[in-house]
Amino acid sequence: MQRAAALVRRGCGPRTPSSWGRSQSSAAAEASAVLKVRPERSRRERILTLESMNPQVKAVEYAVRGPIVLKAGEIELELQRGIKKPFTEVIRANIGDAQAMGQQPITFLRQVMALCTYPNLLDSPSFPEDAKKRARRILQACGGNSLGSYSASQGVNCIREDVAAYITRRDGGVPADPDNIYLTTGASDGISTILKILVSGGGKSRTGVMIPIPQYPLYSAVISELDAIQVNYYLDEENCWALNVNELRRAVQEAKDHCDPKVLCIINPGNPTGQVQSRKCIEDVIHFAWEEKLFLLADEDNVYSPDCRFHSFKKVLYEMGPEYSSNVELASFHSTSKGYMGECGYRGGYMEVINLHPEIKGQLVKLLSVRLCPPVSGQAAMDIVVNPPVAGEESFEQFSREKESVLGNLAKKAKLTEDLFNQVPGIHCNPLQGAMYAFPRIFIPAKAVEAAQAHQMAPDMFYCMKLLEETGICVVPGSGFGQREGTYHFRMTILPPVEKLKTVLQKVKDFHINFLEKYA
Amino acid sequence: MQRAAALVRRGCGPRTPSSWGRSQSSAAAEASAVLKVRPERSRRERILTLESMNPQVKAVEYAVRGPIVLKAGEIELELQRGIKKPFTEVIRANIGDAQAMGQQPITFLRQVMALCTYPNLLDSPSFPEDAKKRARRILQACGGNSLGSYSASQGVNCIREDVAAYITRRDGGVPADPDNIYLTTGASDGISTILKILVSGGGKSRTGVMIPIPQYPLYSAVISELDAIQVNYYLDEENCWALNVNELRRAVQEAKDHCDPKVLCIINPGNPTGQVQSRKCIEDVIHFAWEEKLFLLADEDNVYSPDCRFHSFKKVLYEMGPEYSSNVELASFHSTSKGYMGECGYRGGYMEVINLHPEIKGQLVKLLSVRLCPPVSGQAAMDIVVNPPVAGEESFEQFSREKESVLGNLAKKAKLTEDLFNQVPGIHCNPLQGAMYAFPRIFIPAKAVEAAQAHQMAPDMFYCMKLLEETGICVVPGSGFGQREGTYHFRMTILPPVEKLKTVLQKVKDFHINFLEKYA
Repeated sequence: MQRAAALVRRGCGPRTPSSWGRSQSSAAAEASAVLKVRPERSRRERILTLESMNPQVKAVEYAVRGPIVLKAGEIELELQRGIKKPFTEVIRANIGDAQAMGQQPITFLRQVMALCTYPNLLDSPSFPEDAKKRARRILQACGGNSLGSYSASQGVNCIREDVAAYITRRDGGVPADPDNIYLTTGASDGISTILKILVSGGGKSRTGVMIPIPQYPLYSAVISELDAIQVNYYLDEENCWALNVNELRRAVQEAKDHCDPKVLCIINPGNPTGQVQSRKCIEDVIHFAWEEKLFLLADEDNVYSPDCRFHSFKKVLYEMGPEYSSNVELASFHSTSKGYMGECGYRGGYMEVINLHPEIKGQLVKLLSVRLCPPVSGQAAMDIVVNPPVAGEESFEQFSREKESVLGNLAKKAKLTEDLFNQVPGIHCNPLQGAMYAFPRIFIPAKAVEAAQAHQMAPDMFYCMKLLEETGICVVPGSGFGQREGTYHFRMTILPPVEKLKTVLQKVKDFHINFLEKYA
Repeated sequence: MQRAAALVRRGCGPRTPSSWGRSQSSAAAEASAVLKVRPERSRRERILTLESMNPQVKAVEYAVRGPIVLKAGEIELELQRGIKKPFTEVIRANIGDAQAMGQQPITFLRQVMALCTYPNLLDSPSFPEDAKKRARRILQACGGNSLGSYSASQGVNCIREDVAAYITRRDGGVPADPDNIYLTTGASDGISTILKILVSGGGKSRTGVMIPIPQYPLYSAVISELDAIQVNYYLDEENCWALNVNELRRAVQEAKDHCDPKVLCIINPGNPTGQVQSRKCIEDVIHFAWEEKLFLLADEDNVYSPDCRFHSFKKVLYEMGPEYSSNVELASFHSTSKGYMGECGYRGGYMEVINLHPEIKGQLVKLLSVRLCPPVSGQAAMDIVVNPPVAGEESFEQFSREKESVLGNLAKKAKLTEDLFNQVPGIHCNPLQGAMYAFPRIFIPAKAVEAAQAHQMAPDMFYCMKLLEETGICVVPGSGFGQREGTYHFRMTILPPVEKLKTVLQKVKDFHINFLEKYA
């Protein structure tokens, strides 16, 4: 048994950041090292290696949880083991994980979820009647009245109805049809499913997918997995990360030389960039998609800035008249992770499709059915996100207080972040209007760029690693999202509580000033 | 607004069974029909059509939720609208959905889940202390002590530890390492993730994946999505669906002419076939995989037959000694849907990997991180599946009673099903030992085969459609799982409560006798 234990241990050493993107030659070096260390045991060459694996998966990059996050995990373990650092905790500002940052769940949502989970509680006087009403309605729509049954692959019927009603309210009456709603395992699942159906062709007719730069790296990862062609269009940093249609036109023209651009992805508000698109911009984008025959994917989220309004692609599409509204194919995505509820762990989400060919809808349901159904608990959470308490209901007051607190704080933290970053020499931060991230531009001196090259790191990766090692703050380098050549950024969530966020910003400021001096 | 509503409705007519696999010419016919009906509106050709879509996705088939299930949904709607049928309800015996069939959730699991969902309940005297202890432990391992935070992409640490401890107990002490455990969104997610990494090469060196026939159609679906080569090996129906190594050898030799067989998938107990593999058979399979350098995927489940014992591939691998245990690469899968808990809706699961190259582990975590994390509620449910109450704990007695009731009933229902089917002339059913399905062989008379051909249906699809239309019982034709040419089967779950199952079996019997007479 002891020999077996030793074998298991050998097979599963801790991952190190460097193993993430390690080269093929280092793989060979490791294999021979293993042989040297344990000459007594013949280890055959493995079947699944970096050389034999799916090359498209190998090419996938995902910075939000990449080497810097592995390093953060190592530092946390070192702190636990009592190793002294210039800080006492790692602050994971790399990801928009609201509740991990201390945001409290919305009480009403959790009450309904608890009632659905353990229906004995429906008899308990400690739960409000409106929560019980929601729970009963969800359970009645589940097989065997249980969250433990599979749902239809497209999602529970009544929840799709609630999503459609929510979209109709959101868009001031533009109708939404439950049959166009597909519940998903978070927004990522919807985006990758629809892209999977869209990608086809070979050589110069391989599907091109247009994505913003900077982008959320789910897009580049899925494009790589599917062996599609990534077509970059650049957001205009000098103009608050605006989306410019001339830039879309440039990108699509250049792409036509080597692929068939068929899909245009929009992230609004921008992630990582946080800007909110104007109605005019959305109209221009829709006209462009119509003109160029592009399938639109709109990754849409919440807006907290008091200065701007959210316009959905769906609503603008309908307002542009039948030539557009009956022709432009659109899929838009939302999830329980976004917005003020911040229920990331439940992996709830939905996708609304417009003008999808009926036969493609059949294909979509078929594809979704292979994975049986999205988590039913996530579907239930999605229901509460789109169907919260309304005026006159018992829970309305508490719900409104909790909601306003989250949204008010978010607006405050966005302003705080923008203001503080812009006081630091060598940092510039555009206004933050939506989503939950800042993506400041940072000046990296030539000597630091050289030092980074000596470590075979992108300059902003070098910067973020130093920030992590010196302050415990974990942010993601701009190179993980894409940025114009020669510019450097990082993405940081603004979700920590106000006082903590102030400390984080002050630490970043001190680090940056120090970094500039050190590499002057 | 009314025009817009009309457009939405036009875009999303109800799916009909025939639209699932409809031909390309009918798509064109529909497009022209639309133009004729609404000459006032110019509908441009759509971007995403059956012709332009991803051909690999188009080729995917998934019978468990295919045309027959869509038809079942239509019949249910007709019953709701008061249309008279020879039956009053549709019985969805197509899928192993325990709780939808009336199985009650295990109380302890739901108590822990409710406590995790709404931690205010931790102060409630109506919950037992052992459930509170489990909930506190899970919450402490979650960011912000909340199920609403993302977890690590590999899954919550303490839950992976509990899974490893469970496997170690299951295998009589063969050690399991939490670092080899990956929590997943149901077993399907794990299987498709590892296959995604494994598939590579082009032309004759494209990866071949060996799967049993009959198989669970997730395998063929994922193989199609990935454009891998499906290599069939046939289970021996005459010998209780045994897996014969000579047949594996035949299959791999023939496959080598046109692909690179690299993966061998085993389903134990069989799905849809329900047989449990002997220890000797597993040993033979492992030796074969070692010899042929095949990566093993073991889809493992529960066993209820008092006559046979479950042996895990992992345990047998270790008992075969270091030449095997240090070389054979294995991934095995389990989920909350399987077993006596039957928590399908939570989509919890895990995968254990053995002898996976450390660099591939890095690649696996990277790939999983693109989808952020499995649903945390599903992870928590998985924890209770592997870490139920033990003797001495407050909830142990109730838990044991509930567990024994489910497993006892399952064994009883398996026997009942086997016995009754084998009384019917023209039906033969092998013994059921595990999983929750029967896969009886049915005789279909020549005249019925002709009638099916006239309807452009597989003969067993024709049979199952008639069964559904005449009795309301929904089962899946054997052609959806694969079967030897000229043989016909269907898969039916044995999960309905005993009395209901008796009625179902009696109805199938009457239908079958009638069917034989009609097409004599």
